[in-house]
Amino acid sequence: DYLVSKQNVKNIFVNGTTGEGLALSIQERKQLAEEWVRQGKDKLDHVIIHVGALSLPGSQELARHAAAIGASGIAVIAPFFFKPTSKDELLAFLREVASEAPAVPFYYYHIPPLTGVKIRVEELLDGIKEQIPTFQGVKFSDTDLLDLAQCINKNGGEEFVFLYGVDEQLLSALAIGANGAVGSTYNYLGQKTNMMLQAFAQHDLALARKYQFLTGEFLNFVIKLGFGVAQTKAVMTFVSGIPMGPPRLPLVKASEEFIAKAKAKLDSIVCKTEQHSNIRLAVL
Amino acid sequence: DYLVSKQNVKNIFVNGTTGEGLALSIQERKQLAEEWVRQGKDKLDHVIIHVGALSLPGSQELARHAAAIGASGIAVIAPFFFKPTSKDELLAFLREVASEAPAVPFYYYHIPPLTGVKIRVEELLDGIKEQIPTFQGVKFSDTDLLDLAQCINKNGGEEFVFLYGVDEQLLSALAIGANGAVGSTYNYLGQKTNMMLQAFAQHDLALARKYQFLTGEFLNFVIKLGFGVAQTKAVMTFVSGIPMGPPRLPLVKASEEFIAKAKAKLDSIVCKTEQHSNIRLAVL
Amino acid sequence: DYLVSKQNVKNIFVNGTTGEGLALSIQERKQLAEEWVRQGKDKLDHVIIHVGALSLPGSQELARHAAAIGASGIAVIAPFFFKPTSKDELLAFLREVASEAPAVPFYYYHIPPLTGVKIRVEELLDGIKEQIPTFQGVKFSDTDLLDLAQCINKNGGEEFVFLYGVDEQLLSALAIGANGAVGSTYNYLGQKTNMMLQAFAQHDLALARKYQFLTGEFLNFVIKLGFGVAQTKAVMTFVSGIPMGPPRLPLVKASEEFIAKAKAKLDSIVCKTEQHSNIRLAVL
Amino acid sequence: DYLVSKQNVKNIFVNGTTGEGLALSIQERKQLAEEWVRQGKDKLDHVIIHVGALSLPGSQELARHAAAIGASGIAVIAPFFFKPTSKDELLAFLREVASEAPAVPFYYYHIPPLTGVKIRVEELLDGIKEQIPTFQGVKFSDTDLLDLAQCINKNGGEEFVFLYGVDEQLLSALAIGANGAVGSTYNYLGQKTNMMLQAFAQHDLALARKYQFLTGEFLNFVIKLGFGVAQTKAVMTFVSGIPMGPPRLPLVKASEEFIAKAKAKLDSIVCKTEQHSNIRLAVL
Repeated sequence: DYLVSKQNVKNIFVNGTTGEGLALSIQERKQLAEEWVRQGKDKLDHVIIHVGALSLPGSQELARHAAAIGASGIAVIAPFFFKPTSKDELLAFLREVASEAPAVPFYYYHIPPLTGVKIRVEELLDGIKEQIPTFQGVKFSDTDLLDLAQCINKNGGEEFVFLYGVDEQLLSALAIGANGAVGSTYNYLGQKTNMMLQAFAQHDLALARKYQFLTGEFLNFVIKLGFGVAQTKAVMTFVSGIPMGPPRLPLVKASEEFIAKAKAKLDSIVCKTEQHSNIRLAVL
Repeated sequence: DYLVSKQNVKNIFVNGTTGEGLALSIQERKQLAEEWVRQGKDKLDHVIIHVGALSLPGSQELARHAAAIGASGIAVIAPFFFKPTSKDELLAFLREVASEAPAVPFYYYHIPPLTGVKIRVEELLDGIKEQIPTFQGVKFSDTDLLDLAQCINKNGGEEFVFLYGVDEQLLSALAIGANGAVGSTYNYLGQKTNMMLQAFAQHDLALARKYQFLTGEFLNFVIKLGFGVAQTKAVMTFVSGIPMGPPRLPLVKASEEFIAKAKAKLDSIVCKTEQHSNIRLAVL
Repeated sequence: DYLVSKQNVKNIFVNGTTGEGLALSIQERKQLAEEWVRQGKDKLDHVIIHVGALSLPGSQELARHAAAIGASGIAVIAPFFFKPTSKDELLAFLREVASEAPAVPFYYYHIPPLTGVKIRVEELLDGIKEQIPTFQGVKFSDTDLLDLAQCINKNGGEEFVFLYGVDEQLLSALAIGANGAVGSTYNYLGQKTNMMLQAFAQHDLALARKYQFLTGEFLNFVIKLGFGVAQTKAVMTFVSGIPMGPPRLPLVKASEEFIAKAKAKLDSIVCKTEQHSNIRLAVL
Repeated sequence: DYLVSKQNVKNIFVNGTTGEGLALSIQERKQLAEEWVRQGKDKLDHVIIHVGALSLPGSQELARHAAAIGASGIAVIAPFFFKPTSKDELLAFLREVASEAPAVPFYYYHIPPLTGVKIRVEELLDGIKEQIPTFQGVKFSDTDLLDLAQCINKNGGEEFVFLYGVDEQLLSALAIGANGAVGSTYNYLGQKTNMMLQAFAQHDLALARKYQFLTGEFLNFVIKLGFGVAQTKAVMTFVSGIPMGPPRLPLVKASEEFIAKAKAKLDSIVCKTEQHSNIRLAVL
């Protein structure tokens, strides 16, 4: 409810990085997916469930479950212990998961900084519809904008969506044609980002830049303090007033010092641009 | 039986990298562990079960199971999606797993090339017995020999064992005091490695070097062809005559071309040094 | 003359990467600088001389020379064998060069992929005018758009210029406020890039994107073939008809096969958008 | 004189990394080379001059000069701004330098952590005598012991020497057949290292290890404080009593705090093993 009413979020990506999906058991992931689908029924446009896992059978089990509970889409990360070394190996893995949910839109979750899998998306997309008929798009969490540009150049206009996942340079991705955004800062800077999207849609780059710089300024500040999923949860807690609970080991909860500094910084940033808006965060 | 009789292997590390442990479901890992413990009862000295997992509850479940079936030891890899960023975070995770099997010797499985977790072992070991009373040693699969040397310098003589895991430079690790070896080439070059260990024990470095270079020559050759767990299984199949079965996606089975070339190379290497030996591969 | 009349280039960066400045002797670099300044007198707006070197005295000698011959500006790369490890060390080096040419505008040439020096520009700029009164801006050849955004956020509006150097994502840098571009593709795709700049200035991002994708498509193609300074020279030769001469070792001249493929690709790309334009490539 | 009498050093590598050779002008490098050759005439076995440079003509000029003044050998680092991308490109560059000093033994200086040039030495050596008749060996400053082992396996017994340059793991390199050592710690821990070499020659690995661990313990300590060429000079100054002078920018001189801590550590380490010895540090 908070995300919908306060941050204008209309679409949710469940069991991803920020939600610590890969630190949960299969059973825990199913429970979370069910709860989000149930709660989001009338409030959200799309609930996409991340079903990637190191184990192919585990990932397939989650895909079948997501289909059964009526998810709007599923997403799969590249397996990252045993890493695919070619497009064909990655595609074979994704296909075996996607085929377990043959009526559910499928997204590839590309995040090489965390997986170490650097197969270019441009290459992966070549002929992908023949292998994965449900293929819908990519959550693109990488700074290789040449790869993204080539994806859009070849496929963007037609059929696929490209959701950008590096929040601090979303505007640069929009400039070359990204369709939307999925990221952790939208949990607390979602409204500001919606104002950036609105400015961008109205061709007002100077204003869009102003909002983009807010996210950059905040991230630049907290990265120097040490910023990860545990710290994101702490920020979400003080912004929303809803306790997020502690992270799971090996993550440990953010320090009081971090929280105090991050809160002061975020307050100073948000004050700069107190305004209201009702634009939704375009995810699809 | 093959490993015991033909390669003089006396200790087994189950559900590790070569066994694709991290691509299996929790249930599959339990089955494999049970089978190895049962089969190894009278034939092997030690059966160490790898119980590391991305999810802490999953890892704890495997630790309890290993204790229940009577494993000789358990080992845990650093969690590698959400990565610990300090010694304390890593130690907390390991401790929460170890404490679920309070009577079973505990090993840390250090493999930064695959996990990306570069916390130095020397630092980790400082005071570890107070946190993990069952701590026994490290499977050290890294080329940072300064870190290994410092570990041995400070702890080696006393209580901990350091099993080296970079097969092609085992001799260099022995020179600074490593206690033994765990690695995938011992599945097919175990006998040659035992001869290296024997030569080393007799202070005959020139002979030890000769055997070490066999492993290096083979790995150097196959690495250029593309060498991973799938290819290791293919080599084990043609050496032992026991089909290893296909790897699990995203790995795909080795090509016929690879198998032919690797076999020819291995034959030429082994021919160089046809001899017999009954020395066991010292693991503990 | 070719660059001015055919590619609409109005500013030149001499002895940089493409010109193999760092593979030349001090004497050769002086000769080239003199020739460009003389030839550019009435044809070019600015002739910026790169005077960076591994040796501080060498760099200072080049700075004095550039001032003496009337260069419009000088630029210095971070020293990259002995690398500065902090802002203060880098700044001290740059200051000692800049002070040898106290009336010449000074640019920092930031190119971490080649130097390995990753000191953030945002940090470097903090208080730089007090240390280097002639400081004018940065040639920013890196993909860290958060760093660039922070630079522009804090300094851009006021006094410094940011010339972006990663040609295939220039549009993304313009979106966040970069002032211009310095890059090797402008030697042969300068006119297309000018058309992109014109479209961008008119808020027509869809058209700008179309031109940006030309550069991306070409670079994406040639990078797969192996693309460096030697290959850039080959492309410049077949586009301009002016022989560039062979590169200096360790570079070797591009293969005939590369030239044939690159030419076919470039022709196909340029044909897509045959149009004319008289906009200049904005560098300052 | 200090190195000869107090550290038992018998061979010198001039204008290398520790000597900041690459931060000097061509003229300064010539002066230093002349002085070392003159001073070393009756005191040293070999004086090897490093003549590598970014510019081929500069490197050739230094090679001719070294030959003219009677150097015992010359060494060349891989060019590292424009990097060779294949064995052939690197070999061509080295050949063009070596041929300027056709009667002087030639060494390749392999230091990928600083140059970024990762061409494997094993590959480079294949057929090198046909291209560089004066080729004598390699200063191998890398931790890739598989590469070193393959070099020795194929060439070591015959004709080439391999001088190892990662001081903290010299013993591991000796175990696989390295011939000697070139490194900066020998300026202050040369005597201890000579004792390690003596122990190694007598097959007393336990004792050799004890000396190796001294170097490891010291480096491990200072690396955490920040350790580079500037700090090496500070250590040399307090050990020898001979002021080394300040480093050249971008390096800055070590802090007083560093010096105090490093001195205390080195004293405690050296005290552990106060003994005397007259063995020379084998370099050739």
